[in-house]
Order: sequence, then structure tokens, then C-alpha cells
Amino acid sequence: MKYSKIPEATIRRLSRYSRCLEEMDEKREEVVSSAQLATKCSVNAAQVRKDFAYFGEFGIRGVGYYVKDLLQDIKRILGLNREWRMAVIGVGNLGSALLSYKDFLKQNYKIVAAFDINPLMVIGRVSEKLGKPVEVLHVSRLKDVAKERKIEIGIIATPPSQAQSVADLLVEAEVRGILNFAPTQIKVPKGYVAKDVLFTNALDNLAYLLTNY
Amino acid sequence: MKYSKIPEATIRRLSRYSRCLEEMDEKREEVVSSAQLATKCSVNAAQVRKDFAYFGEFGIRGVGYYVKDLLQDIKRILGLNREWRMAVIGVGNLGSALLSYKDFLKQNYKIVAAFDINPLMVIGRVSEKLGKPVEVLHVSRLKDVAKERKIEIGIIATPPSQAQSVADLLVEAEVRGILNFAPTQIKVPKGYVAKDVLFTNALDNLAYLLTNY
Repeated sequence: MKYSKIPEATIRRLSRYSRCLEEMDEKREEVVSSAQLATKCSVNAAQVRKDFAYFGEFGIRGVGYYVKDLLQDIKRILGLNREWRMAVIGVGNLGSALLSYKDFLKQNYKIVAAFDINPLMVIGRVSEKLGKPVEVLHVSRLKDVAKERKIEIGIIATPPSQAQSVADLLVEAEVRGILNFAPTQIKVPKGYVAKDVLFTNALDNLAYLLTNY
Repeated sequence: MKYSKIPEATIRRLSRYSRCLEEMDEKREEVVSSAQLATKCSVNAAQVRKDFAYFGEFGIRGVGYYVKDLLQDIKRILGLNREWRMAVIGVGNLGSALLSYKDFLKQNYKIVAAFDINPLMVIGRVSEKLGKPVEVLHVSRLKDVAKERKIEIGIIATPPSQAQSVADLLVEAEVRGILNFAPTQIKVPKGYVAKDVLFTNALDNLAYLLTNY
């Protein structure tokens, strides 16, 4: 089943709901109303119901939603009911931070490789992850290693001047998803998906709220 | 003038438009149509016009928009027509990456202080910024330094276990805006604005697109 007309803002909220439901499930809460979910996620209840309406009827009238079922449905819609194998390219400060970001694992995101143009220089910087240090490989090995380790998402954490050439390498290696942390827009051909993460976007939102509220 | 009913997704796109317009302005392009701006920012043209409709008439019918004027208007709306003074709290890998993130300056975001619980330990890690290393101070000095340096935004880059207590310190220091990079939700009292930045949100969006397209 394809859900291709869902607005990006809804997808973003679904990912927030899934995190809240995850916490509820850990606390063994079994049922949740849209009002409770809304409070927990700092969204209004009408918005929760509107978001869920895109995907048909989840809930049981007068009861709310079963936490486990709702979580499973949302994960299926988001494509989070499976493991995503990722590589980090560029192991400077940001790359190292991403390599030790524990929250990835909770959501089934697994970093299975790290690349740099100077692997020997960065080894000391790489933090241990679950007791096992991540081996940093030379970026020239990207294509081979991507195939071997079935990498589907490449995370670019290089300086902006290198971002597009790394994106080109990822495309050549048929890594279909790219998350770009370098402050520059990258382009990928059809069939590939690239998202630019700009820290300034989050700040712009904050500046707007500070100015207008 | 207050624009308090603008959806968050519109604000996010405005921040994207401002970046595209910034580039156009640097290239001395004087006029842009909504179609051109849409292509440049990977948004559809109807969406651009719809977003701008929230703020009244910007453009000149049949001509498009004057790049400089449009940029200035958007910056005013977002609160980016001024400098924002920020502090980073937690100078590990991520904090160091943020301290050397050059894109902040383009948007008038200025990091004027950095704090850690162990300033002596992290000094080697801090990159030079514009030739001048940022001094890392002990977090106990946050309140005094925030007042002295007129800090309005605090960026939390600590482990999740420390995030809420750092947020409480920022509130005590009357730092009204908080950007939290620790993978946990933080709470602030009324009158304060906190935004959580979760790297997994961006990945969830990518996973959804990879699954459904």
C-alpha cells in the first residue's frame, strides 16, 4: 500500500507520535485517547485525529487506541518496521557525534560503516559505540563496502565543499537515501532521495517564536 | 505586527526561501518569479504563493518579486533582521561541531559563550572559529555570563540525562529560547520556547520516502 499524498508535516508528527507511543509501551500503558496522545506529544487533539484520518480508522470509538497496535501501524507507514543500514561519511566532530548517537538504535537505524578521506587521522576521535569502536574506512572503498554491507542510507557529515561529490559517490554506489548535514543543498537523480538537515532551520523557527510570542 | 497563526511548515519553508534568496542576492539577481523561487527551493509554485499569502501582497503582478525586498520582508517576519546571541552548553563532539558551524553566522546567529561541566577536559576538542578559539566556561557560571553577554538562545548539546537540568539553568538565567539536541523532550515554563532537534526525525522522513516512492 502506498501513501504518497501525506504532507511532510504529518509525517513529521507521526514520527513524534511513534516516539511517545514507544515510551507508553515501555511503561506498559495499553490504551490511549487522542487527547492523551496530544498532550504527551504537545500537539492538539484535533490535529492528532486529522493526521490519523489520512490512514483510515485506527481507533475504537469511545476507547481510544491500543498503544501496541497504533505504534505498529505508524511504524509500518513510516517504514520503521524494519532495520535501516546506514553509513556515515566524514568523521569530524559531527560525524563522531552521529556515530555515538544512541537514539538511532531505538528506531532501528544502524550505522554499519564510517568513511573519511583520512581514516588514520580520525581514529582517535571516534567514540566507542556499545563497547565496539567503529572502524573508519577510506572513502574510496564506499562503493564496494556499500554493496557488501547492504547500505541504504548515507549520512553526509563532511564540509560543504565535499558534500556534492560524496552524494555522487553514494549515488554511484546505489545508496538510495541521503541525509546531508553539510550546510549546502545537494542534488540527486530521480529514484534517489536526499534530505538536507540545516541546524539554522531549527533556529529560524525558534527566532520566529521568540519574536512573535 | 504579530503573525501568530502561521503553520510551522510555512515558517520552515520561509526559512528555506530566505536561504535561496540570499544566494540569488549574492549573485546580484534582482527579480524572481514564484515559479523560479519554487524550482530553486524544490517547492511547488502554488505552495510558494500560498505561503506568501499569509503575509499580504509581496509581489508585483506580472513581474514577480524583488529579491532584496522579499528577502528583507521574510527576514523581518522570521525575526532574522537582527543578531541572536547564543550559548552552547555541552562541548562534546556535537557541541564542538556546532561551535564550528559557519552557517550560523550567515543568518546572524552568533555563539558568544560555551559551557561544560569540565571545561579543562574539552579545551583540546574545541575548534577554532574565525581564527579565535571559543573559551569554554564552567556551567556554574551560566547565569552570570548569560546576563553579561545578553544571551537569548541556549543550545543544549549534553547527554540526555543532563538536558532537563541544563534547561532549568537556562530558564533561571532568563534565556528565553532553547534548542535541545539531546534525544529527550525538555519542558520549560510559559514565556520560554524550547525546540527539540531529533536526528531520528529527519531519518524517519527519509525512511518514509524510501519506503513509499
